[in-house]
Amino acid sequence: MKTIGYAAHSAESELVPYHFERRDLRENDVLIEILYSGICHSDLHTVKGDWGEQPYPLIPGHEIIGKVLEVGPAVKNFKVDDHVGVGCMVDSCLECDQCGKHEEQYCRNGLTGTYGSEDRIDGSITQGGYSKHIVVREEFVLKISEKLDLSKAAPILCAGITTYSPLKKWNVTKGTRVGVIGLGGLGHMGVKLAVAMGAEVTVISRHKDKEEYAKSLGAKGLLCSTDEQVMESAINSFEFILDTVPVKHDFNTYTPLLDIDGSLVLVGQIGEMEEPETPPLVFGRRRIAGSLIGGIKETQEVLDFCAEHGIHPQCEIIKPEDINNAWDKLQKENPAHRFVIDMKTLES
Amino acid sequence: MKTIGYAAHSAESELVPYHFERRDLRENDVLIEILYSGICHSDLHTVKGDWGEQPYPLIPGHEIIGKVLEVGPAVKNFKVDDHVGVGCMVDSCLECDQCGKHEEQYCRNGLTGTYGSEDRIDGSITQGGYSKHIVVREEFVLKISEKLDLSKAAPILCAGITTYSPLKKWNVTKGTRVGVIGLGGLGHMGVKLAVAMGAEVTVISRHKDKEEYAKSLGAKGLLCSTDEQVMESAINSFEFILDTVPVKHDFNTYTPLLDIDGSLVLVGQIGEMEEPETPPLVFGRRRIAGSLIGGIKETQEVLDFCAEHGIHPQCEIIKPEDINNAWDKLQKENPAHRFVIDMKTLES
Repeated sequence: MKTIGYAAHSAESELVPYHFERRDLRENDVLIEILYSGICHSDLHTVKGDWGEQPYPLIPGHEIIGKVLEVGPAVKNFKVDDHVGVGCMVDSCLECDQCGKHEEQYCRNGLTGTYGSEDRIDGSITQGGYSKHIVVREEFVLKISEKLDLSKAAPILCAGITTYSPLKKWNVTKGTRVGVIGLGGLGHMGVKLAVAMGAEVTVISRHKDKEEYAKSLGAKGLLCSTDEQVMESAINSFEFILDTVPVKHDFNTYTPLLDIDGSLVLVGQIGEMEEPETPPLVFGRRRIAGSLIGGIKETQEVLDFCAEHGIHPQCEIIKPEDINNAWDKLQKENPAHRFVIDMKTLES
Repeated sequence: MKTIGYAAHSAESELVPYHFERRDLRENDVLIEILYSGICHSDLHTVKGDWGEQPYPLIPGHEIIGKVLEVGPAVKNFKVDDHVGVGCMVDSCLECDQCGKHEEQYCRNGLTGTYGSEDRIDGSITQGGYSKHIVVREEFVLKISEKLDLSKAAPILCAGITTYSPLKKWNVTKGTRVGVIGLGGLGHMGVKLAVAMGAEVTVISRHKDKEEYAKSLGAKGLLCSTDEQVMESAINSFEFILDTVPVKHDFNTYTPLLDIDGSLVLVGQIGEMEEPETPPLVFGRRRIAGSLIGGIKETQEVLDFCAEHGIHPQCEIIKPEDINNAWDKLQKENPAHRFVIDMKTLES
């Protein structure tokens, strides 16, 4: 079908309205009318070519909330008018050990990204959620509980699952002493989710003035990372640290804050880090790891967890014509909330 | 009692014979005649001040095999003539959570090192195993099975436990795909122990010509880390990598070799590492950690494991007067075996 989205025509260009074709439904496909589409910092990185060359025109967006318009004949779990979500992946091999463990994000044969990837069947380039419609195989479509506010649920599909998955994988639970570095799109969701899991959460930030905001999210306080005395007194404080900083930074600032056997898990920075020191690792058997979004089953889990606990990301709803403006703000101001595009106002 | 050892009188000086006093036995003390004393690379680092200022004169040595000469009245587990060992620690608080978990190496109140530490009771400086006698509280004395060759057992007390502990902690078992980086004192023990645990072990080394030696230790082969093609083809190969390299190096060379969810554990380098890249961590949920020796219970376990499996470190027995010469070789040649001093020939 013909539809419309906002596409970049090169790494340097702004996003502009772009008419394009969504594929006809395959047997197991779901056609979705997109209602809301979240803006993720990785949209900028990808489109601007920071993480490798891209095919253009490219429509970004992998935090998608919509309504089912039509289903293929073999679709079992969705029907017309269902509220649904699509996250960072729209396909994987579904045959390897990782897919078998519901960890499609680590598919041995490579996941198919929601935009900028090759479709596994026809080789066309996938186009993302800054658009009016999308067609996705049902295995990669999520159910959206009616308890969730549709206008605020989109960022759960990326910021939510990206922080939820490591919290679960590293067994964060009632009473776990958790530190969350950074309080942007990822960090603020990390705080809300860890708090809902019963953890004792502290935000670690360069900005002392974010303490009230951190507390409003359920954190018990904020450690100012530029205050050496505060950091010194916090040595061994955390069993788990979620590191959401999206730029090159220094592990050494944070690893001493881990308790013995504690883990720091990176979910923000894709690239280089400063030179680390090994003594905090060796003398406390501390660990550093990374984590990438989460599998589809776990994405459904975090959506349902948010529905059950009344958790919504902090969102600012914008119109499609304000996308470029929002991208500018994201780059310059590092806001502590997520922009969500109201796609309903986009005329096809 | 009066005894003799080899001490350094400054960070720059060679080791020379040195007469000194061992304390009178406390209730729970064991007096040991030292038969063999292993030379560990960390002896050099410590004495030369690489890891901080030291008190001099200082007698190094924390891989000690000896025979009990006398026991204090409250000693329960040792008697005269028992063969015993002493490793890297001679005391800890034995009251904190870590000591309660038999992880005295991470004692909250600080372990007492076998040399260069303050005795917890009288504040005197502990002196190590390059000496004729030592007095140690029984909780930190190990039993040496008669199945072990006394002349070759000493390095198990440091090189053995340092590699055994992370292998156990990270659940290396039958069939685990293990990489061991480096084939020196630590690395060669790591290979032998992992092989005995049933793991499928590959050595990773800059030196292709060490392959036969690696195989003689039970490894199935050697990956030459300077051969890009070999390294490229080994991506995702290992569930666990033991990194024994004792100098600044680059995680990025090795982290891609880890399979998804795999861990690289540092036991060699105490200091800086090169700038790491996060993609291997993020896109495979890979982990980097450190590990420090092991607890006393686990040290007994590795001694008994070596006795049961007939594992001995590769040792070159030297006389006390050759210590300085051996240190030179250790610095310049990075030998693939351990020097062990035959202390029996030292006249007191």
